[in-house]
Amino acid sequence: MSDDLMTTIRPLVEKAFPFVERMGLRLDHIEPGRVRMTCPLEPNTNHIGTMYAGALFTLAEIPGGALFLSTFDAATYYPIVKGMEIKFVKLASTDISVEVSISPEEVARVSAEADANGKADFEWDCELTDAEGNVVCVTTNRYQLRRHGS
Amino acid sequence: MSDDLMTTIRPLVEKAFPFVERMGLRLDHIEPGRVRMTCPLEPNTNHIGTMYAGALFTLAEIPGGALFLSTFDAATYYPIVKGMEIKFVKLASTDISVEVSISPEEVARVSAEADANGKADFEWDCELTDAEGNVVCVTTNRYQLRRHGS
Repeated sequence: MSDDLMTTIRPLVEKAFPFVERMGLRLDHIEPGRVRMTCPLEPNTNHIGTMYAGALFTLAEIPGGALFLSTFDAATYYPIVKGMEIKFVKLASTDISVEVSISPEEVARVSAEADANGKADFEWDCELTDAEGNVVCVTTNRYQLRRHGS
Repeated sequence: MSDDLMTTIRPLVEKAFPFVERMGLRLDHIEPGRVRMTCPLEPNTNHIGTMYAGALFTLAEIPGGALFLSTFDAATYYPIVKGMEIKFVKLASTDISVEVSISPEEVARVSAEADANGKADFEWDCELTDAEGNVVCVTTNRYQLRRHGS
């Protein structure tokens, strides 16, 4: 299952559009409810050689799409990003990784609410970590699941 | 004064590093305490042809550097970005612009606090608007001014 997901979803998230493709974001692992991605330091450095804030934002945001594709029925639902709160806590001087997950219970809750109301808000916290495991950035991501045709 | 600022600061913000240069961000206007920038829709579209969230984040973040350079003494102080709260309120389907400003009173407060303590937090709200003047995104940007050598 995970191998199939990797094959089908990797091009959708790594090559989805030029902005992301230029960053060289990599999908490391994907399964229903869980995704791990990495952003290479090059070519995403800022004027002092650490990873630029906009690249860190993108690394925190893109896994939402991958997680949606591995977890929800894309023929029935689609997600929108409503917002994010992001805090930079340490300079990012290596490749940076993120892992996000959503529980089966939360998937069931969000799906049921979208079925009933046409839309449902959900969110998750995520941590971006460097090659030594240090947290460089923490975010709270806010999404909405919408039911097609609602 | 503004013409000189535009000449000296434009390359610093438009070509500062590849991530931003690839987006084609433009510095439209700069004066002490005020800056206006625009992000072209192409090449920053997402999979549905609107401006990608990461490009909107960057358009909200980069003016902080430009405003610092036009307003503070870079030989005495440097800024860091501590975080941002960003809300996406409307699809961004044209070039997107932002204008940010800081009052002389706030510049005096932040400078005095950095002189006394070595650092001082400050923040501002900003709105990103499309070609018709619609607000597509609102943010609260949190920065810290630090005094060199403190």
